[in-house]
Amino acid sequence: MILQNIHSPDDLKALPESELPALASEMRREIIDVVGRNGGHLASNLGVVELSIALHRVFSSPHDAIVWDVSHQCYPHKLLTGRLENFYTLREKDGISGFTRITESPHDFFDAGHASSSISSALGLLSAWQQTGKDGKVIAVIGDGALTGGMAFEGLSHAGQLAKNLIVIVNDNQMSISRNVGSLSRYLSRLTMTDAYQSFRYKFDRAVDYIPYINRHIGKLIYRLKRGLKGMFLTNNLFVDLGFEYVGPLNGHNIEQLERVLRKAAKIPRPVVIHVVTKKGRGYSPAENNPSAFHGVGPFNTSDGVVEKFDALSFTEAFSSKIVSLAEENPKIAAVTAAMSKGTGLDAFSRRFPRRFYDVGIAEEHAITFAGGLAAGGMVPVAAIYSTFMQRSFDQIVEDIALPSRHAVLVMDRAGAVPSDGETHQGIFDISMLLPVPNMCIMSVASRVDLDLCLDWAVSCAKGPVAIRWPKMSCPSELASFAAPVEAGRGLFVGAEEFAPAVSARFADESELNGAKNKKVLFVCTGGMFSECLVASRSLLLGGIWADIYSLRFIKPFDEEYFVKLASSYDAVVFVEDGILTGGIGRNLESVLLRSPYAPKIKTAATGFPDRFLHNGNRMQILEEAGLDPDTIAALARTLTEN
Amino acid sequence: MILQNIHSPDDLKALPESELPALASEMRREIIDVVGRNGGHLASNLGVVELSIALHRVFSSPHDAIVWDVSHQCYPHKLLTGRLENFYTLREKDGISGFTRITESPHDFFDAGHASSSISSALGLLSAWQQTGKDGKVIAVIGDGALTGGMAFEGLSHAGQLAKNLIVIVNDNQMSISRNVGSLSRYLSRLTMTDAYQSFRYKFDRAVDYIPYINRHIGKLIYRLKRGLKGMFLTNNLFVDLGFEYVGPLNGHNIEQLERVLRKAAKIPRPVVIHVVTKKGRGYSPAENNPSAFHGVGPFNTSDGVVEKFDALSFTEAFSSKIVSLAEENPKIAAVTAAMSKGTGLDAFSRRFPRRFYDVGIAEEHAITFAGGLAAGGMVPVAAIYSTFMQRSFDQIVEDIALPSRHAVLVMDRAGAVPSDGETHQGIFDISMLLPVPNMCIMSVASRVDLDLCLDWAVSCAKGPVAIRWPKMSCPSELASFAAPVEAGRGLFVGAEEFAPAVSARFADESELNGAKNKKVLFVCTGGMFSECLVASRSLLLGGIWADIYSLRFIKPFDEEYFVKLASSYDAVVFVEDGILTGGIGRNLESVLLRSPYAPKIKTAATGFPDRFLHNGNRMQILEEAGLDPDTIAALARTLTEN
Repeated sequence: MILQNIHSPDDLKALPESELPALASEMRREIIDVVGRNGGHLASNLGVVELSIALHRVFSSPHDAIVWDVSHQCYPHKLLTGRLENFYTLREKDGISGFTRITESPHDFFDAGHASSSISSALGLLSAWQQTGKDGKVIAVIGDGALTGGMAFEGLSHAGQLAKNLIVIVNDNQMSISRNVGSLSRYLSRLTMTDAYQSFRYKFDRAVDYIPYINRHIGKLIYRLKRGLKGMFLTNNLFVDLGFEYVGPLNGHNIEQLERVLRKAAKIPRPVVIHVVTKKGRGYSPAENNPSAFHGVGPFNTSDGVVEKFDALSFTEAFSSKIVSLAEENPKIAAVTAAMSKGTGLDAFSRRFPRRFYDVGIAEEHAITFAGGLAAGGMVPVAAIYSTFMQRSFDQIVEDIALPSRHAVLVMDRAGAVPSDGETHQGIFDISMLLPVPNMCIMSVASRVDLDLCLDWAVSCAKGPVAIRWPKMSCPSELASFAAPVEAGRGLFVGAEEFAPAVSARFADESELNGAKNKKVLFVCTGGMFSECLVASRSLLLGGIWADIYSLRFIKPFDEEYFVKLASSYDAVVFVEDGILTGGIGRNLESVLLRSPYAPKIKTAATGFPDRFLHNGNRMQILEEAGLDPDTIAALARTLTEN
Repeated sequence: MILQNIHSPDDLKALPESELPALASEMRREIIDVVGRNGGHLASNLGVVELSIALHRVFSSPHDAIVWDVSHQCYPHKLLTGRLENFYTLREKDGISGFTRITESPHDFFDAGHASSSISSALGLLSAWQQTGKDGKVIAVIGDGALTGGMAFEGLSHAGQLAKNLIVIVNDNQMSISRNVGSLSRYLSRLTMTDAYQSFRYKFDRAVDYIPYINRHIGKLIYRLKRGLKGMFLTNNLFVDLGFEYVGPLNGHNIEQLERVLRKAAKIPRPVVIHVVTKKGRGYSPAENNPSAFHGVGPFNTSDGVVEKFDALSFTEAFSSKIVSLAEENPKIAAVTAAMSKGTGLDAFSRRFPRRFYDVGIAEEHAITFAGGLAAGGMVPVAAIYSTFMQRSFDQIVEDIALPSRHAVLVMDRAGAVPSDGETHQGIFDISMLLPVPNMCIMSVASRVDLDLCLDWAVSCAKGPVAIRWPKMSCPSELASFAAPVEAGRGLFVGAEEFAPAVSARFADESELNGAKNKKVLFVCTGGMFSECLVASRSLLLGGIWADIYSLRFIKPFDEEYFVKLASSYDAVVFVEDGILTGGIGRNLESVLLRSPYAPKIKTAATGFPDRFLHNGNRMQILEEAGLDPDTIAALARTLTEN
């Protein structure tokens, strides 16, 4: 085993070239094994094995900084920087993160997780190093997908203007940025890189720069000729227009060629884009054949690549079929997403109604304002974006959706605790972000039937903007109460009678069960916390405390009068929220009760995500760390009734 | 007067060409007069007079939609669409908005105000119209500055992909997007537009598209040749790379040429960029000579263009000099802004320390992540962005500043009530946006001395991210208390003793003044509301109620224990905040008191911006509409003490 002897990039540098292909194979084997067990990003990591090797052989991390965009392609980098030993803990609680993490290694410079930020981060780092006299190189590695994000363009544009020797590696594995892949362009890229050409190019540029002052017309003509020459013989594209040197496209699996070009690029005193073509899923045929299915995956069978599937229907799947059936009836429904068509469940819609489906690429800001435009023109846009990525669109929601009160539906999947992806992916800020925004309606759903009814209401009855959130999990079993018709401002009341039968058998007789009604608790929860509250309620019931649940279909608008009256018959009210506590709905409603005339009589407590970034884990581990697991919730309620 | 007879675009169309130059002059006169009186955007509006005339003659608004980016260039459009009569009320309360407003006219399709969104809005509108069978054209007009915003790139990229006949007019008035301005390129743009060329071009493209299947190498060669031809004879640039037809650059003050090109562009069945070169401030020499000074201005003398200047130092000016003096001592301080160097006061820094100053253009997302990169590399970035535009960076603040807890200072000017710019520019969401974010420190300042001390603390003492906010107004007179040293979590206590002397003369004797201490109120306010609270306190004092002030230097972290003890000696506590009430600091602290043992004893109320978008007005008008003027605040306190 070669990989086992690689404890740092220095070990890698000492390796003879001839052993590199074997190393790459071992790395792929390790990644496939671990991702097969733990889930994770497979295709993107398999695609950059050779690129990672080349980068770590040419540059000297952490003296030089390699900045991975989104960093869902950082597993090879982790294997090469001393993290093989613990790699089996990938994406587990207290294990190796699926993304770069500053606290994990000095080779990880940023906590990446949201796309399109690498160029900005890298340019800032390089600028600071140059200000403070540090001479390390900074290399940003960004996929062609992330490059569609406007922020990447902002970064490129600023880098071109600053003209520092930032190296941007465009990892082209899917979308074609440039069609001119072929032998001619390989030749041209070699030409671009030779010192003689560089020297000629600069002399020519400098000469042309002088000409306009002498004779404008000749100057323009020469400029045009130069453009023409570049267009014919050299690569002239977007990057060049933004002030970069452009090299490529290169075969991203040819380590030798990559190393040669990287060494030359390191010497160019200007920003350089190196365009590298890689194959997603390289070396594992199930992933090569279906890279999008293996982008981010749960555990799978490594021999045939069959991904594990849960039996119970997820909220995502429930949405997926409901939005299609709504669109069958209503030709005005259009769907928008930002490169999350599979993750949000819109893939079914995209196949059924391709003309009404808009995947704008990784571009959340545009997605929302574009949806606002669709609404302005009379369509009913349903924009589905993960809760954590909706943060990118806050300003667009305020200005282009809420201010003009557009009838647009913002679907936030992965709201609340998000398993295995760590700090950067928790969906915990959407409520506090949207609650203060005028004209917004915010809903949360507790089950499939609830989702169906709420989505129908949002699309067919609402007049202004509606945001609907649900977690990444299976829908809980249905209860009759979930089918209650939607009334603006009102939640779903689920009395303990409805789930008590499952518990009542354990009581000696019915009178004992009814005796529990001496102490009454009301759980007020976001839909995503319904299951945990249900378990907590049952456990309270066993301990002689009666606990009903009020699930917040409507977080905003909120019928305060109705709620205060409901709450007034309880001894204690516990607010449970799978969002950040500060600025969330729980504290808000608690304060409504505290200012009500019933304040002295009702004990209250609010719980939600605490004021810190939580560690990685599965859903239950995250909820436990946040104090949102059923036991802690039940204990909180119990304490209130005891005081 | 020709302009007086233009009540709609139809009247404009009926006008003979010969009268257009006179019309343009009248429009300029009107704009200069009104902006001279009311303030507003001058240079940008004077630059697009001819373009607006040409657009409204060629297209049929509102059957066709003209979408103005940011819309600080919409005055000519307003004059041509029936708003001349009320134009004198520009930017006044209940008057004509300085931006396009849906409620103002059917010719205004969007409530614009934040940059770079026009292409997204326009593309959404066009897509919806095509879905619903409406055949109107949609034209986005975007300045070269706004084009640096990543969202504009996202929009262009999506438009190129959808290949609809969206027309994007790039209004190039400053930054050079392309150097090839000249007679040759005018010739080329005419060539591009002729039907014969279009027909040749499509046939050629189609032919080339077939070739790769027959012989790849020849195909590539032809592709290269085609690129070369385009590069030599035609315009090949960023827009073309993104799938647009490109025409230009055109002289934006030649109505006849503009009309001719616009008519042809309307027929092209694909997205078109029309590159128009205009002169900011055209027709008014003070503005032509200094366009950036006349971008957004207060009232000025129309004869010589001297802009009115307030005597009192503004918070912006206080920051401007303090950050320079801090940077003199600390070579690690770097300043970042997003095309707001004058508005934030960083212009002085930029002149004194050009190498440590980064203006990234209209690109708030990049600005913040870039600042995170600077901090990662050991600098102390101070990023100054208006509160309303900081909304653009929410995700970047969470992921790239707060999560890694970077020591970066986020300066938010124009926090709170923003005069004259209307709904889109109020700085009322920054507190609710940042309060829930872990690791963030949030400060607000009440005076110049306070600002100096807080900024010094943020730069020199803080370890993680600090956001500091102040309003667009003059600093109030200093009080001795403002000089109290900064203690994390603690506010500035200003006892009524300190400002009572100004009031006490009106009392018969000192015992009467002391008698006021029978009822005690504490105002707890953001720094921006200090002046209003001071006036309210004085008025309460005259009515026999003692009122001290606690100004929230620290909104987060917050020393709750210290605060609860302080508050416990008052009969009433009133929270006053120039931010949105929901999710703000007032409700949060009120809830701390309500949960404290003193709850039954202390009456509380919290006031802030209500749950709706407020109308335009000057600072006092906005505060009055929000119930945040001194009289309303005092009345609220009085009511509490009476109950």
